[in-house]
Amino acid sequence: MKLSEMNKAELESFKNEASAKYEDYKAQGLKLDMSRGKPGSDQLDITMDMLDIVNSKSDLRCEDGTDVRNYGTLTGIIEAKKLFAEVLEVSPDEIIVGGNSSLALMYDAVARGITHGVYGSEKPWGKYDKIKFLCPAPGYDRHFGICECFGIEMITIPMLPTGPDMDMVEKLVSEDETVKGIWCVPMYSNPDGITYSDETVKRFANLSPKAKDFRIFWDNAYCVHHLTDDPDTLLNIFDEAKKVGKEDMIFEFASTSKISFPGAGVAVMAASKNNIAQITKILGMQCISYDKINQLRHVRYFKNLDGIKAKMKQHKDIIAPKFDIVLNTLEKELGELGVLDWHTPKGGYFISVYTLNGCAKKVVNYCKEAGVVLTGAGATYPYKNDPEDRNIRIAPTYPSREELQKAIDIFCTAVKLASAEKLLAE
Amino acid sequence: MKLSEMNKAELESFKNEASAKYEDYKAQGLKLDMSRGKPGSDQLDITMDMLDIVNSKSDLRCEDGTDVRNYGTLTGIIEAKKLFAEVLEVSPDEIIVGGNSSLALMYDAVARGITHGVYGSEKPWGKYDKIKFLCPAPGYDRHFGICECFGIEMITIPMLPTGPDMDMVEKLVSEDETVKGIWCVPMYSNPDGITYSDETVKRFANLSPKAKDFRIFWDNAYCVHHLTDDPDTLLNIFDEAKKVGKEDMIFEFASTSKISFPGAGVAVMAASKNNIAQITKILGMQCISYDKINQLRHVRYFKNLDGIKAKMKQHKDIIAPKFDIVLNTLEKELGELGVLDWHTPKGGYFISVYTLNGCAKKVVNYCKEAGVVLTGAGATYPYKNDPEDRNIRIAPTYPSREELQKAIDIFCTAVKLASAEKLLAE
Repeated sequence: MKLSEMNKAELESFKNEASAKYEDYKAQGLKLDMSRGKPGSDQLDITMDMLDIVNSKSDLRCEDGTDVRNYGTLTGIIEAKKLFAEVLEVSPDEIIVGGNSSLALMYDAVARGITHGVYGSEKPWGKYDKIKFLCPAPGYDRHFGICECFGIEMITIPMLPTGPDMDMVEKLVSEDETVKGIWCVPMYSNPDGITYSDETVKRFANLSPKAKDFRIFWDNAYCVHHLTDDPDTLLNIFDEAKKVGKEDMIFEFASTSKISFPGAGVAVMAASKNNIAQITKILGMQCISYDKINQLRHVRYFKNLDGIKAKMKQHKDIIAPKFDIVLNTLEKELGELGVLDWHTPKGGYFISVYTLNGCAKKVVNYCKEAGVVLTGAGATYPYKNDPEDRNIRIAPTYPSREELQKAIDIFCTAVKLASAEKLLAE
Repeated sequence: MKLSEMNKAELESFKNEASAKYEDYKAQGLKLDMSRGKPGSDQLDITMDMLDIVNSKSDLRCEDGTDVRNYGTLTGIIEAKKLFAEVLEVSPDEIIVGGNSSLALMYDAVARGITHGVYGSEKPWGKYDKIKFLCPAPGYDRHFGICECFGIEMITIPMLPTGPDMDMVEKLVSEDETVKGIWCVPMYSNPDGITYSDETVKRFANLSPKAKDFRIFWDNAYCVHHLTDDPDTLLNIFDEAKKVGKEDMIFEFASTSKISFPGAGVAVMAASKNNIAQITKILGMQCISYDKINQLRHVRYFKNLDGIKAKMKQHKDIIAPKFDIVLNTLEKELGELGVLDWHTPKGGYFISVYTLNGCAKKVVNYCKEAGVVLTGAGATYPYKNDPEDRNIRIAPTYPSREELQKAIDIFCTAVKLASAEKLLAE
């Protein structure tokens, strides 16, 4: 029975039951964390043997003879470029292999935009009174953090089942010269787990921005992070853009953070040759090279895309059951109550849920008081402002299955309690 | 006999002899490189066993329990902070452990100054029409490159045997609010190999800048890079500055690039707690952490400052003889001619020489035509402008001893030729 169909007495009784259960949980003094998309330590064990592959007996020369131990090779060793070119389906000369953080590559790309502009800029972005980025939301809080950090005005774009609302995107980029960028997680989006439809990707590749220096920040963080055997597929945006000569509009990012080690992976940026040339010139002032030994370590370990896929299957075997725990519990506890919506993702790191209007903050707070840490409500929106206070991001990967079951039980109780309270107050 | 004391006929004869020898070298079609301060591959072999110390059997938890494989620990693992605190003689909470590049830490520090300002800034440096950095010269070309990259005006400060001309530094920083920084390599300076005197360090620590957000960029790149058993010593600038409450004025940098691997070392920044707090806030938008596995690898390998010193002795044993080859050859070939001055460094990576006025470019070019690549003449000055065209930086570490002997022979011949030509033209 839906909560909205209950009469007052039924609701009171429902609330009291939820409340009693909640107090029980609270009394247990638990400490559980579903806040961040962190791999569990069992996932980190998958690639431990990578640490043996480059050792004191290794020949540390690249296939072109470069000694990876020494200075130089700014944009990455050739075999790493080839590996990531295969993953992202671009050419090796469209690749910059970075350090351990794709977030840093993104921050640096925005920072260069501010201080220098990008390829095609008439002036640095910092020379405008104000520039704007479009922010499909709910989205990745750290993307929004970069905008806030640089004082870039964020315009929220609603997420649809096909990806961002492209009517709105097309209108805004074509009308406003100060719209310089858009943040996208096109595959298994953070947090919704939505993969952009072919039409959405094509519309992105065919955008006609008023700003000649508009950039799509295509954060393909979950490109090989499938949870099922019938994964989503994402159209290659570069292929589409090249058909119409618009490939300069795209900055693509990825990393091995959730393939090898979050603290010691390899990040990568893909971009057109014009962009790579402009970036390389400034990058050469910032560093002499990224960590090439770690690049070589990754290449010799994974070898190619198939090597990466094999490891991702092991990740899937560990985390898919965790997603199932969350999804099954949500369905069992809340499926018939009509107080929570969610999307079942086929990949990525999150389950994104929508409470009744105005309940998300309350649910997160109830969970917190019972020892369950969730991502802050609102964090998935620009300026932490979820206009309807509905979205909560659940990150099921880090806790153990037992902890996760307990945490999601508490979460469901909190949703029941907050929802009943809301309906009673109406 | 000094060249300047020769009569015209003697000079002609001297020149012809040098010219014939030069043509001989040229005909050999050599290819030798003394351009960059790169360790030789025998130096890189010293720390190869570091690559075994973290392996698939290792417990990758820090002393505080942090799993270095996962996300987090933005400013570095505690044991790495302790190690570098010992090296730089500061407290661990005055340390940020970075990625593989101290240059990147410096570039990022300037970039943050431009986009956000530093602790104490009234506004971001980018909001000024123009800001200025003082550049003791000859100096490190990549420091000057960062300034050029951000359009920061560079003011050349002469280097004296005691370090930068402090009268000039004190005058400029105290008079001009737009002077926001100064680049220093205080120990075994690049390229002169000069260590700042105690008085110079004290005068730096006691500067009274007009700008409240003036910063000393103290690039202590060669702090443990001694070439003799009676090394120079450098006063701890933080100790001096703390005596007068001016520690916020200092950003110190170092790295293991020339201790472990230039392509895969660990970089570090030391700064006051006020600075660390301001930096950490912005840094947290740029990345989630640097490579903590590599930090742990370095700490477990070196253990402490004594461990680093032991390895630096091995480096010394390899490179000190190379410095001797250069210095002995300069003395033997040119010592009595009065056409070249140089300083004998007790550490660092360079020998810096001064030709007769107006000869440096010509010497570098002669060397190039005979197959010996040197750092471009002028590169050691802001805007690549050596006002007297005298300074040449020699980097003896990368070539083998045999190559180096050949290269320095050619260099001496080029100096003889260019000097004689100059004196004949007067």
